[in-house]
Amino acid sequence: MIQYDHPVKVYYKDVDQMGIVYYSRYFEYFEEARTELLNSIGLDVTSIENQGIQLPVIESHCEYSKGAKFEQDLIIKTTILDIPKARLKIDYNVYKDHSNELLVKGYTVHAFMNQSGRAIRIPDLVLNTIQDNM
Amino acid sequence: MIQYDHPVKVYYKDVDQMGIVYYSRYFEYFEEARTELLNSIGLDVTSIENQGIQLPVIESHCEYSKGAKFEQDLIIKTTILDIPKARLKIDYNVYKDHSNELLVKGYTVHAFMNQSGRAIRIPDLVLNTIQDNM
Amino acid sequence: MIQYDHPVKVYYKDVDQMGIVYYSRYFEYFEEARTELLNSIGLDVTSIENQGIQLPVIESHCEYSKGAKFEQDLIIKTTILDIPKARLKIDYNVYKDHSNELLVKGYTVHAFMNQSGRAIRIPDLVLNTIQDNM
Amino acid sequence: MIQYDHPVKVYYKDVDQMGIVYYSRYFEYFEEARTELLNSIGLDVTSIENQGIQLPVIESHCEYSKGAKFEQDLIIKTTILDIPKARLKIDYNVYKDHSNELLVKGYTVHAFMNQSGRAIRIPDLVLNTIQDNM
Repeated sequence: MIQYDHPVKVYYKDVDQMGIVYYSRYFEYFEEARTELLNSIGLDVTSIENQGIQLPVIESHCEYSKGAKFEQDLIIKTTILDIPKARLKIDYNVYKDHSNELLVKGYTVHAFMNQSGRAIRIPDLVLNTIQDNM
Repeated sequence: MIQYDHPVKVYYKDVDQMGIVYYSRYFEYFEEARTELLNSIGLDVTSIENQGIQLPVIESHCEYSKGAKFEQDLIIKTTILDIPKARLKIDYNVYKDHSNELLVKGYTVHAFMNQSGRAIRIPDLVLNTIQDNM
Repeated sequence: MIQYDHPVKVYYKDVDQMGIVYYSRYFEYFEEARTELLNSIGLDVTSIENQGIQLPVIESHCEYSKGAKFEQDLIIKTTILDIPKARLKIDYNVYKDHSNELLVKGYTVHAFMNQSGRAIRIPDLVLNTIQDNM
Repeated sequence: MIQYDHPVKVYYKDVDQMGIVYYSRYFEYFEEARTELLNSIGLDVTSIENQGIQLPVIESHCEYSKGAKFEQDLIIKTTILDIPKARLKIDYNVYKDHSNELLVKGYTVHAFMNQSGRAIRIPDLVLNTIQDNM
């Protein structure tokens, strides 16, 4: 298991007229969190893309228990549970900072694709780095 | 079944450096589409909110087969399949215009909430209008 | 002068907790409007980009008199006043639909750039098309 | 003069198909930066709003010299130059981290408004706090 805690602060841009974070913005927080999780084990997406490999999202999911509010500090607990084969799944749990209150949880599933848009096996570099950090 | 076809055009603001619509933006297209579906049967969200009722999203899901591109015209085929009880589920299928090519599909689930943030039964007005249009 | 009226409807995604459209979203409406203005005279940005030419924004400006609200219909009156030399300036006036109430006004200035990121003269195709429609 | 340096990292969500940050996103970075500048002198927007006072943006401006890229670290140098009377002006300069390379600069102007949407004088609390930190 690889885990990374990514802090996010809620700003006006993400809050709707119900006074809570608009539902799609959590997927933006998730993207930040997985970028930082990958960084934390030495993988940066820019380098992967420079090798001609892309990681498009092929599935996304979110469940909302309680809305986060403006100027709240959140922690996105981000986890890779399984060694990926063709696909990489990442889980996210959004907590209010310094609390055990789970606001939102979700996941994303990613494929690996070459520059002509064809699905490929997970690149060795990515696989080995994930295995070494499990 | 209630169905509504909502057209969307892809602009620069929604396209990422892979040259395809960023994954969370489809949830914004979905919101447009469900607002228009509800409008098409005589429900507008502003009036519902003015009665003190909110429809927060409690679950969202999306599967991505093929990325939409800048300046493409899309059709969001939007459907209410079942008469809601406590929760309203809406399905979305995103097609490239004038084609049967399904790019993305997803759904959202909505609860009904009063102004103090408590879950409530589906309001009669909403329920009756949906039933009349099924 | 080239003018184009682009309709926009305000959805939840663009409205903040003051109940008005978040200030940066108007620049997204402006982008939609200028894309459609260019389309209306036979220029599409995709074709221009396919010729290796980009039109980055080099200046943007907006003044806000009154906030647009959820489910309001807006008209973005979009204008090219002058034949561009090195730079193309586009003006935007945002009205509440079917009214003369000006909510927001702004402008953007665009440069022309080749694929190596160097500023270039306005391409003949763009210049001629604009001149023919003035 | 009050100054605050706000760090921002560029994620995929903000980058367009030219491979640079989409022009309106800088206004979101500016909002983060001014929220943190106000926090740094003891003002938080939530408390101000809880007193029935809003700070809508009435003018925004940005000039773009060079595009920021995915996974770049930016510093938003944020400044209040003058003691506000009716209006508060805030300036922003966006630098690539650990460099003197200015990518983008801009400003926003804010009014003070009561809950009925009427413009008001700057509240004493805000004025005094700004004066004390000049």
